[in-house]
Amino acid sequence: MSPDQTPASSRRLKLGMVGGGQGAFIGAVHRIAARIDDRYELVAGALSSNPERARASGTELFLAPDRCYDDFHRMAAAEAARPDGIDAVAIVTPNHLHHPAAKAFLEAGIHVICDKPLVHTVAEAEELAALVHSRGLVFVLTHNYSGYPMIRQARAMAAAGLLGRIRVVQAEYAQDWLATDLEASGNKQASWRTDPAQSGIAGCIGDIGTHAFHLAEFVTGLRCTDLAADLTAFVPGRRLDDNAHIMMRFDGGARGMLWASQVSPGTTNGLRLRVFGEAGGLEWQQEQPNELRFTPLGEPTRTLLRAGAGSLPAASGISRTPAGHPEGYLEGFAQIYRDAADRIAASIDGRPAPADVPLPTVEDGVRGVRFIHGAVESSRRDAAWVSLAG
Amino acid sequence: MSPDQTPASSRRLKLGMVGGGQGAFIGAVHRIAARIDDRYELVAGALSSNPERARASGTELFLAPDRCYDDFHRMAAAEAARPDGIDAVAIVTPNHLHHPAAKAFLEAGIHVICDKPLVHTVAEAEELAALVHSRGLVFVLTHNYSGYPMIRQARAMAAAGLLGRIRVVQAEYAQDWLATDLEASGNKQASWRTDPAQSGIAGCIGDIGTHAFHLAEFVTGLRCTDLAADLTAFVPGRRLDDNAHIMMRFDGGARGMLWASQVSPGTTNGLRLRVFGEAGGLEWQQEQPNELRFTPLGEPTRTLLRAGAGSLPAASGISRTPAGHPEGYLEGFAQIYRDAADRIAASIDGRPAPADVPLPTVEDGVRGVRFIHGAVESSRRDAAWVSLAG
Amino acid sequence: MSPDQTPASSRRLKLGMVGGGQGAFIGAVHRIAARIDDRYELVAGALSSNPERARASGTELFLAPDRCYDDFHRMAAAEAARPDGIDAVAIVTPNHLHHPAAKAFLEAGIHVICDKPLVHTVAEAEELAALVHSRGLVFVLTHNYSGYPMIRQARAMAAAGLLGRIRVVQAEYAQDWLATDLEASGNKQASWRTDPAQSGIAGCIGDIGTHAFHLAEFVTGLRCTDLAADLTAFVPGRRLDDNAHIMMRFDGGARGMLWASQVSPGTTNGLRLRVFGEAGGLEWQQEQPNELRFTPLGEPTRTLLRAGAGSLPAASGISRTPAGHPEGYLEGFAQIYRDAADRIAASIDGRPAPADVPLPTVEDGVRGVRFIHGAVESSRRDAAWVSLAG
Amino acid sequence: MSPDQTPASSRRLKLGMVGGGQGAFIGAVHRIAARIDDRYELVAGALSSNPERARASGTELFLAPDRCYDDFHRMAAAEAARPDGIDAVAIVTPNHLHHPAAKAFLEAGIHVICDKPLVHTVAEAEELAALVHSRGLVFVLTHNYSGYPMIRQARAMAAAGLLGRIRVVQAEYAQDWLATDLEASGNKQASWRTDPAQSGIAGCIGDIGTHAFHLAEFVTGLRCTDLAADLTAFVPGRRLDDNAHIMMRFDGGARGMLWASQVSPGTTNGLRLRVFGEAGGLEWQQEQPNELRFTPLGEPTRTLLRAGAGSLPAASGISRTPAGHPEGYLEGFAQIYRDAADRIAASIDGRPAPADVPLPTVEDGVRGVRFIHGAVESSRRDAAWVSLAG
Repeated sequence: MSPDQTPASSRRLKLGMVGGGQGAFIGAVHRIAARIDDRYELVAGALSSNPERARASGTELFLAPDRCYDDFHRMAAAEAARPDGIDAVAIVTPNHLHHPAAKAFLEAGIHVICDKPLVHTVAEAEELAALVHSRGLVFVLTHNYSGYPMIRQARAMAAAGLLGRIRVVQAEYAQDWLATDLEASGNKQASWRTDPAQSGIAGCIGDIGTHAFHLAEFVTGLRCTDLAADLTAFVPGRRLDDNAHIMMRFDGGARGMLWASQVSPGTTNGLRLRVFGEAGGLEWQQEQPNELRFTPLGEPTRTLLRAGAGSLPAASGISRTPAGHPEGYLEGFAQIYRDAADRIAASIDGRPAPADVPLPTVEDGVRGVRFIHGAVESSRRDAAWVSLAG
Repeated sequence: MSPDQTPASSRRLKLGMVGGGQGAFIGAVHRIAARIDDRYELVAGALSSNPERARASGTELFLAPDRCYDDFHRMAAAEAARPDGIDAVAIVTPNHLHHPAAKAFLEAGIHVICDKPLVHTVAEAEELAALVHSRGLVFVLTHNYSGYPMIRQARAMAAAGLLGRIRVVQAEYAQDWLATDLEASGNKQASWRTDPAQSGIAGCIGDIGTHAFHLAEFVTGLRCTDLAADLTAFVPGRRLDDNAHIMMRFDGGARGMLWASQVSPGTTNGLRLRVFGEAGGLEWQQEQPNELRFTPLGEPTRTLLRAGAGSLPAASGISRTPAGHPEGYLEGFAQIYRDAADRIAASIDGRPAPADVPLPTVEDGVRGVRFIHGAVESSRRDAAWVSLAG
Repeated sequence: MSPDQTPASSRRLKLGMVGGGQGAFIGAVHRIAARIDDRYELVAGALSSNPERARASGTELFLAPDRCYDDFHRMAAAEAARPDGIDAVAIVTPNHLHHPAAKAFLEAGIHVICDKPLVHTVAEAEELAALVHSRGLVFVLTHNYSGYPMIRQARAMAAAGLLGRIRVVQAEYAQDWLATDLEASGNKQASWRTDPAQSGIAGCIGDIGTHAFHLAEFVTGLRCTDLAADLTAFVPGRRLDDNAHIMMRFDGGARGMLWASQVSPGTTNGLRLRVFGEAGGLEWQQEQPNELRFTPLGEPTRTLLRAGAGSLPAASGISRTPAGHPEGYLEGFAQIYRDAADRIAASIDGRPAPADVPLPTVEDGVRGVRFIHGAVESSRRDAAWVSLAG
Repeated sequence: MSPDQTPASSRRLKLGMVGGGQGAFIGAVHRIAARIDDRYELVAGALSSNPERARASGTELFLAPDRCYDDFHRMAAAEAARPDGIDAVAIVTPNHLHHPAAKAFLEAGIHVICDKPLVHTVAEAEELAALVHSRGLVFVLTHNYSGYPMIRQARAMAAAGLLGRIRVVQAEYAQDWLATDLEASGNKQASWRTDPAQSGIAGCIGDIGTHAFHLAEFVTGLRCTDLAADLTAFVPGRRLDDNAHIMMRFDGGARGMLWASQVSPGTTNGLRLRVFGEAGGLEWQQEQPNELRFTPLGEPTRTLLRAGAGSLPAASGISRTPAGHPEGYLEGFAQIYRDAADRIAASIDGRPAPADVPLPTVEDGVRGVRFIHGAVESSRRDAAWVSLAG
């Protein structure tokens, strides 16, 4: 059966990957996420720029030897030329390679799924966005936390007016794994994240702050218009921020705070969002992602469970297991891949993109880069207000 | 590359499935579990006894038409005869088909992964156990909750003596989805579970009580020697128990209680285990599976996180994500499949089975059937003590 | 102002105390409980049988020297004879003195507030009950946990039918402070509680099991008709039970389990009650007493807060602080004293007792002693069912 | 027995009260707090400026008629003149009366216990502080949350260096009771708190933000040197802030955020403090005040229980009940009164003040007023940094 003749929606999409070789973290996560709903098969990769590691990594993943590349430019060209070439590529490298890699595949006419933050500069981000639009390709940014069913539920509840006009947004994302200079020990994950050459101008706010920022806008449907930021690098010798305090103002008058930290002992992967409106409040914590606490003003707090009573289609419609059977980080990530598959298949098949699927795209990437640069600029100006308008 | 020449440990295992067609619940779970770690490819199925549904279900799963069967006997024979036949079969039907299906595949020389409870009677269970041994095949029972890393951690801690001699075991598994006569409404999941012909002599204690019982023995390393049970069918007209109160005695003098219920509003999938020894206590709840509370006697309670500080190799070694990135039900289930793959591949390759992998087998299935029959007998005798000795 | 002329409801009641001298635990609790709502003044005491300690203890409590007794018989006689004698006495000794002390004061015509369990034997209990009735006196048993507002709320919700017909009751009370033979170290609290001469035939089930049993009946409004108990003394050399597993049957068909333990590391004062009916379920934990989780069948769980939204008059009417300002153990205990004051003052003033105040009385004491003896008898008969009918 | 001859440390202190008549909230709290440890007897009051209500309120509290005043100036004079006059006065009025009342009693030579915030302006605050010092009197400000044992524990742990050098402080205090214009309905508590004439220049930050600010400094031992504040009045027509976002900088380089809100549905009395240092982190929530979560960097989180394992003398030494028997808001408040009694009695008896008792004083009041004014000024200047230096 030739993929040419089978509609893309009726077959597995052919996926390539850039980055994610042996020793990497997020690449393995992307691969599991791509497998969970069985919408992809991984068939090619530039898993490492080291030829040996590229090949060894590919063999472990059952890739054919001729599709184990050690250069993503070559991979983009070769795959674009094959009749059975990849439909889409997942870019899972450190940040500094997002831009060249994404550009290479977009120019080769290949759909892109890219890790966040998008790129280092607003100019690069806008360049990619323009490229995506001019080529008519799908570009998905893996703000994976927006794939959690109860985050989709929260967004749907806000959109349905269950909170009333929103007044206060409290977002935080706290970790402790960089409380010491782990980068000095040779830890690979720590090293690139604290290296401006690979990570860009931001440390903690790029790595995790962007997730919190994205969720805040994603759930509320509001846009942050201005922010005032106080960034710190607490660990001696560290060149990028490892703690950020940010005040935010949203269109419509809502106010918010955002705390991101990688130096706070006792926090692990503490992404938490609280939204308060005139009519009700919501609270969600990533470490217990199947629950959403909802309080209509003047009533007792309800604990809504994913796929349980009170679960809206936005959440139950994307649940793989019944309430009480916890889904986790990988399933949330898989949702991004599932939604991406729908969109990519539609594009390939010449159908319109599915409606009402709130998938993070290159525009969210542009926005995230704006957030990073706005926060850094504000902090340099002693926490003056900086506009995020485009 | 021929699978005949590649060691099974270096390729994906070829998996078949019995049951799990359109409309089923647990079949989809098994399939995701098999995919997560990429150790299997699903290539054949008797997904339904209805030929049309069998074929339609198979097409959805990308099965080749000639490997979509509507009869598991025929499937066992045909797959055993193919050079590229399946390595293993997953049996995910209602309980009453476990015995004939397992028997058919074992007799065809095919490894079996089977849902629980094993079969209806102790005699059937022992027949399967004998067959497994005489054929030298792998038989895995999907007591999936034992695949959770923090359950493995709890078992390792108990085995390492961190609790001291164990005194008290509190196991419970409470749900509320059968609080009304849902079976009367035509709900498929409710119907077969409350039908003695399909479910056997037990309702709630077979469906979920066996999980709690298995975990209690699995974590403590103790054997329950005697039990006294008070079973109830609260919903009018229901023929099988929907609530069970059980007192237990273990070898070595420990005592326990087990509560299983499907009629308790506000509980969802409330599997919970607490173990108390002379030197410390443990608490684990399935709905927050990444945490394990551990209290050395006289010290503050520690919350151990999967893959976090204090995580033993038994847990961190099988984690797919770092601490704070929650794994859930599907990953726990996937662990059973990953461990099964190791064991099946070793068997195919003629290597010894991996040591120290606590995978539930046909013996656990025998034990579960003994538990069910013991509880039913005790309850019929007004909660008299019944021995579980074999 | 003479107390003779002021209605008792418009003055502080004059309180005496038996037990509770220096080094005691529960006596101080009773005194704080009596002070919180300012309905009593402590004016006399037989705080110790040791004359010196009796006097020193009294001085600390601002008692007049002539009202510091070292013999409760003498105290009963003397106070009954004084024009300004005590209105009521609080008995806070170890268990074995409850009977003679209560008898002495009742015979002297003095109202009694007594700690639990009431007495050692059913015969003693019934004797006291008869005395209370023949004398027309108030007798309050300090099952203090029934004074928590959210326990009153739970009772009111059950009575109002919000749970529907009750099916399942899960009660537990777990501690760990007796996990070692603390009594051997001279710890006073441990010593008398594990000494049959002072504690009676029961250890753990008398000390804490009676509280769980009382709450189960108090909240549900049901009576436990039969129980089957498996009691254990885990600590070597201990003569009384330190762990108890009990199955219960209630009138109306509900079933229950009760676990009481003082040897379970990681539990502290873990009194917990869960009640499940046809229409809804409730969960309450003593260590977070201001919350009550309520789930109407098929709806999300609500967390009801004391004095918060959804709080019934039964709870908000007896709250001293607004929601979110936690009340604790002492306030729950104080509620018993406040309700007792209303009842005692009504008795003194010749008014009818306040209606609808669910204060534990001598009858609850009789019931508790029946529970203890039933459990011990059942356990001796290898957990045979024993009736609790009077 | 004449109070003149008995050392103050061996008798109950004679307490007066200004404010707290019928219908008030915090006055009743102060009275219970004063009673719990039996160190005071309430003997006089200017409970209301309305003569009738003053007398009726006094009668309810068993005050002698001649000590029920309707004017606090007259009360100060009269009590100072009596041989059995009050030792101390509790001032529990709305904020605007704190200054004149405190001044009147201090000038009469009477010790003062005053509710917070201290006064309206920094000048008034400094005037009172000077008066306290010149008269050598005790002045206690009821920042009651600092009386919670686990807050004292947190402070002791920070002081002992268990957190290492502190980097990040997260303080929040969120409520929802003013989410609507409750003041328009005539609610007395809402009315004065939202009225600049009675409440001063601040709403939410004065009423609750000062508590969070005080705790942040109290626990860390650091001083906030600068803050940037974004205050909002969300409820239409409200004249004072009902939500505040504040960034803070501390001496030594620590950074912090403070969120105070009275318009956030689902929060009740959500005072929460998190402190993170180089060596460990702490988390405490007022609604579960008996717990303190402590994480030494790189180790599992411990849940420390008041009076439980790991409890320092700072906490266990002031506990009234064992671990697991929850103390609450009233006991925390009572601790302030108990510590105040020690200090006042020492002053009366001419002994030095007890060492190491971290009681909030007039200086904390000055600091709190500085915080309020700093936040308001910063917010008026679009969240510019404002120094809190004195």
